[in-house]
Amino acid sequence: MGLELYLDLLSQPCRSIYIFARSNNIPFEFKQVELFKDSVLGKKPAAGSGAEQPRTGPSNSEGASKVSLLKKVPALKDGDFTLAECTAILLYLSRKYKTPDHWYPSDIQKRAQVDEYLSWHHANIRANAPKTMWIKVLIPLFTGQPLPSEKLQEVMEGLYTSLKQFEERFLQDKAFIIGSEISLADLVAIVELMQPVGVGCDIFEDRPRLMEWRRRVEDAVGKELFFQAHEMILNIKELSNIQIDPQLKEHLAPMLMKMLK
Amino acid sequence: MGLELYLDLLSQPCRSIYIFARSNNIPFEFKQVELFKDSVLGKKPAAGSGAEQPRTGPSNSEGASKVSLLKKVPALKDGDFTLAECTAILLYLSRKYKTPDHWYPSDIQKRAQVDEYLSWHHANIRANAPKTMWIKVLIPLFTGQPLPSEKLQEVMEGLYTSLKQFEERFLQDKAFIIGSEISLADLVAIVELMQPVGVGCDIFEDRPRLMEWRRRVEDAVGKELFFQAHEMILNIKELSNIQIDPQLKEHLAPMLMKMLK
Repeated sequence: MGLELYLDLLSQPCRSIYIFARSNNIPFEFKQVELFKDSVLGKKPAAGSGAEQPRTGPSNSEGASKVSLLKKVPALKDGDFTLAECTAILLYLSRKYKTPDHWYPSDIQKRAQVDEYLSWHHANIRANAPKTMWIKVLIPLFTGQPLPSEKLQEVMEGLYTSLKQFEERFLQDKAFIIGSEISLADLVAIVELMQPVGVGCDIFEDRPRLMEWRRRVEDAVGKELFFQAHEMILNIKELSNIQIDPQLKEHLAPMLMKMLK
Repeated sequence: MGLELYLDLLSQPCRSIYIFARSNNIPFEFKQVELFKDSVLGKKPAAGSGAEQPRTGPSNSEGASKVSLLKKVPALKDGDFTLAECTAILLYLSRKYKTPDHWYPSDIQKRAQVDEYLSWHHANIRANAPKTMWIKVLIPLFTGQPLPSEKLQEVMEGLYTSLKQFEERFLQDKAFIIGSEISLADLVAIVELMQPVGVGCDIFEDRPRLMEWRRRVEDAVGKELFFQAHEMILNIKELSNIQIDPQLKEHLAPMLMKMLK
């Protein structure tokens, strides 16, 4: 049994793994899970946890819950070995498939810089960017009403602070976060920053340096793959046409509001 | 110029680095920074960010801000190379000083399990445990009044959920998180879980499996070193005798309340 990756491309950590595996020609079986559907079925989404509860489709629900004991996507299954958490999966793939050195450089200082970014990312970019999707799309969809605009403003302010640090501290005037070549740090960052873009908060618009970096990342992994991975999130507004069961709305609304406290 | 570590042992990430360096006989210059003092001077603590703003003492304030461009502890300076973020620093030290394999095993699956825990830790144990110190000690100290008990209860409930997952998913019936030997995962976990203990929330009391694991971790790093590193946090209640300037209280109170929203 070969490598299996349980992914939902609506989830940004899943997209980074998908892009990494595809762009490095790592052979894997794509196990489609459905985060959103499972949320609708009443499982509590893990707010700000760095991973999402799976929206397991009928065909994979058993497989996915066997794979991730934490019941989250992304999840990896490689024979009997299972693994959760985006960073752990990316590093495992880079080691097992000996991907090109630039992704996670053997140079001890450059490697430390990738680690430094990945750690900072959790509590900064990752803590703010995904909330835009909850505020702009999912909460209105479930609760039937938009959130007060102050809520979005508060999240955007947090995100702008993180973006300022991202540019000044990490990107600076380099092509990529750790220098002239793309690394796991860039990949983890870009998928997160595409989440607000998908829901209409184009954070790249007034940030030419950030936009140039985005273009370089797209080129490095291949534009076609990049946009294929982001197709769902860039069309997420179509979700707003879905009719949600009124009972489910009632059940989920307080839970969703709590997530954004 | 040798290795310098900028640490405040009140901060749990700093303690993990201190214990790791000392127990592996890594030679370093201990640069004492003072998280708490700098907070009092009006810098905004980074709530839930996985790192703390430094309380730079007069002797090191310049050095520390040069070292960590993110203005946080822990920070490492090794010649011209500087590094922030606890996980990045621990991994850098393990590579540079070739510490025993069990800390971050070369076995690809065991290493992935350490990575998995370190990532999960951020959004779970780390997201809850440190708040107990803010609620029980620092906020009452700065605002002059205790928080409503519901606030502590809410944080403790989040922490209990994380601890249940920690025991069932990660520790199971093993001696340490990834098996029979201590790794970076255990070290990062234990320092965080000592934070509530220091402020009077003994989470080990009714958890024999967790307590046995704690004893094994203490033995593995050496009890003397363990308690030396935790001396400040285990005596943090002495802080409540400090007189805080009324103007500073007024300035900091709303900021501290916002951190715990």
